[in-house]
Amino acid sequence: MTYDDKFANAIADLKQEGRYRVFADLQRHCGNFPRATWRGPNGARDIVVWCSNDYLGQGQNSEVLSAMHEALDTYGAGAGGTRNISGNSRAHVLLEDELASLHGKESALIFSSGFVSNEAALSALSRVLKGVTVYSDELNHASMIEGIRHGGAPKRIFRHNDVKHLVSMLKEADPAAPKIIAFESVYSMDGDIAPIADFVEVAKTYNALTYLDEVHAVGLYGEHGAGVAEATGTMGDIDVIEGTLGKAFGAMGGYIAGSSVMVDCVRSYAPGFIFTTSLAPVIAAGACASIRYLRQHNELRVKHQERAATLKRKLAAAGLPVLQSQSHIVPVMVGDPVRCKAISDELLSVDGIYVQPINFPTVPRGTERLRFTPSPFHDDEMMDQLVAALDRIWTKARLPRAA
Amino acid sequence: MTYDDKFANAIADLKQEGRYRVFADLQRHCGNFPRATWRGPNGARDIVVWCSNDYLGQGQNSEVLSAMHEALDTYGAGAGGTRNISGNSRAHVLLEDELASLHGKESALIFSSGFVSNEAALSALSRVLKGVTVYSDELNHASMIEGIRHGGAPKRIFRHNDVKHLVSMLKEADPAAPKIIAFESVYSMDGDIAPIADFVEVAKTYNALTYLDEVHAVGLYGEHGAGVAEATGTMGDIDVIEGTLGKAFGAMGGYIAGSSVMVDCVRSYAPGFIFTTSLAPVIAAGACASIRYLRQHNELRVKHQERAATLKRKLAAAGLPVLQSQSHIVPVMVGDPVRCKAISDELLSVDGIYVQPINFPTVPRGTERLRFTPSPFHDDEMMDQLVAALDRIWTKARLPRAA
Repeated sequence: MTYDDKFANAIADLKQEGRYRVFADLQRHCGNFPRATWRGPNGARDIVVWCSNDYLGQGQNSEVLSAMHEALDTYGAGAGGTRNISGNSRAHVLLEDELASLHGKESALIFSSGFVSNEAALSALSRVLKGVTVYSDELNHASMIEGIRHGGAPKRIFRHNDVKHLVSMLKEADPAAPKIIAFESVYSMDGDIAPIADFVEVAKTYNALTYLDEVHAVGLYGEHGAGVAEATGTMGDIDVIEGTLGKAFGAMGGYIAGSSVMVDCVRSYAPGFIFTTSLAPVIAAGACASIRYLRQHNELRVKHQERAATLKRKLAAAGLPVLQSQSHIVPVMVGDPVRCKAISDELLSVDGIYVQPINFPTVPRGTERLRFTPSPFHDDEMMDQLVAALDRIWTKARLPRAA
Repeated sequence: MTYDDKFANAIADLKQEGRYRVFADLQRHCGNFPRATWRGPNGARDIVVWCSNDYLGQGQNSEVLSAMHEALDTYGAGAGGTRNISGNSRAHVLLEDELASLHGKESALIFSSGFVSNEAALSALSRVLKGVTVYSDELNHASMIEGIRHGGAPKRIFRHNDVKHLVSMLKEADPAAPKIIAFESVYSMDGDIAPIADFVEVAKTYNALTYLDEVHAVGLYGEHGAGVAEATGTMGDIDVIEGTLGKAFGAMGGYIAGSSVMVDCVRSYAPGFIFTTSLAPVIAAGACASIRYLRQHNELRVKHQERAATLKRKLAAAGLPVLQSQSHIVPVMVGDPVRCKAISDELLSVDGIYVQPINFPTVPRGTERLRFTPSPFHDDEMMDQLVAALDRIWTKARLPRAA
């Protein structure tokens, strides 16, 4: 059997399970978000994007784009090296200062992506803190799981958002040994929110370091968009805040913020940071402009929450099985990967509605779903069209309605 | 001891070893590469960058910048999602088509960075090919080492570029078991080049998959800039070519190219690809324009090699300990981390010459060096100034001259 035969077999396995992924060929319309052109088997057509993580449409914000045009003319295209070897620039320094200020921390550090920031930071912290045990929420993102795994420290997994379960584990631990509690604020697939204040209290009692992933919250929660920790008054008690520049901030890249010595350790010990070309200055400049904008425009966050609440209400009124999440994320449950993909395909080809099926391994098997992310720019008409299309599909396929 | 005390101790260890890294605050002058402004303790001054990996100055190429300005207006800032969930665009598809064509392969796949591409591809291939053993050159890059480690397959390390040593290992192996031979073309710290044709022959004899990292060669070698494999006529025999968009192509991001089923496997099985926001379309568009430009401008590569040869000749004539590398990379050996840093500091503050000290863990202890990367834009005057400054420092500090 050739190597290509082996690869073909691995692909066949995915197809048989109904979880082979086909990327939709999209072209967003800058200035007209959430509209886009989709190139499908029958040619191009206009569609509405319903599953973007550019939650506030900042990818088309004119102040962001101006900053990026200007940065291209000032700095050129790429950074030209790692941060240490000729790839550091004003644009990087200014962005890290802005991020530290946003989160009220001494220091911040940027990475190629949010995935890399979690992988690099958690693995480096695990190695620097000799004898550490990492306590990890069972629904933590793949990037956190990889970071913890690569760090090689012992890991204990507590039930999702279950503070009591975490406490029961901490009670068994050596009080003198270092501990990291790693969790997220907004969980991106169910849209539920962690009890941050409770985790902070537990961390103080058991002298643990808190590591909070706010990637689905930065830009979106808190008076200045610093995240759920800002909104709940707990930001000062979190030791490491991890975020992304690629979702609500509309650019790309990830970061951590915290004490100067903690940040300096990750900067100095993480291979995933040290040995990589730094973020293109044009991206850093765009992210910086976006953060500044969102710090001053809380009304976008208010509108965002109103839109999400409205969509949830409309879906529930139609008897569709929407999860009444606490956040801006609106999941509609399907529970089967093949059916989930078929609904997504029909919405796209018949209704011009683009929402990707969410199947294993992104969510557990049996909980396959459509995940809608309404932005401030999704209007009532778009929502009514979406609900009518889902209602038609649910009736035709006799899918289970909400209880 | 608080967590910050532990972090401070870890930083103190680095400082004591003389390998604590301080980033130079630089602002490149777009359109005037390799000149830049450095902000040091005594204010700003103009300097010449001598250690950029933007080897051909493509970061300031006007065709690249035009494509990026246009992409900003067309697509907006970021991609808005993972490749699978609303983050795929025309710009990504076109770039992957261009990369596949460049390397004469069926397919290509882009990643956030070259580091991520090695990490994701090698770990995914190790997991998909059940029972595989990875044969890895001892000087492979940190990202390849991490990818192999994370894949969890058995690894055997052969001596650098030593085909006989590799063969001796393969002779001991089960002929039926899958094997990956992982190596680089241009090794970035010594500037030496792998005997690719020999490795290919061995791979055929022992039925191994070849994985070649060309990050310091793409754009720079071969008639169309596809790398050393193109230049040596071995490209068709390499199964997986890995490259970067962040060095000679002047942008950011990484990629692999190979058979469609191999690429599809990495696309479908690598968490570092699946769960990350895709490259910003503006970056993808810039990289694509840069590749197209360099495919048609072999004269830049000719000039680049001439400049590197000239610098090596001038350094040798002054009796400075330059490594007579086979490539465009020009290392001058120092052999001590503290001294290496001191020379770099003096060059920057006294002469306006920016070259970063290369210390452990980037190179083995005792082989600390300055690593110069002359571009087509480094003229004779700049070179003479550099050689004079080094000559002065070598004399003053009584550093060993070349044999």
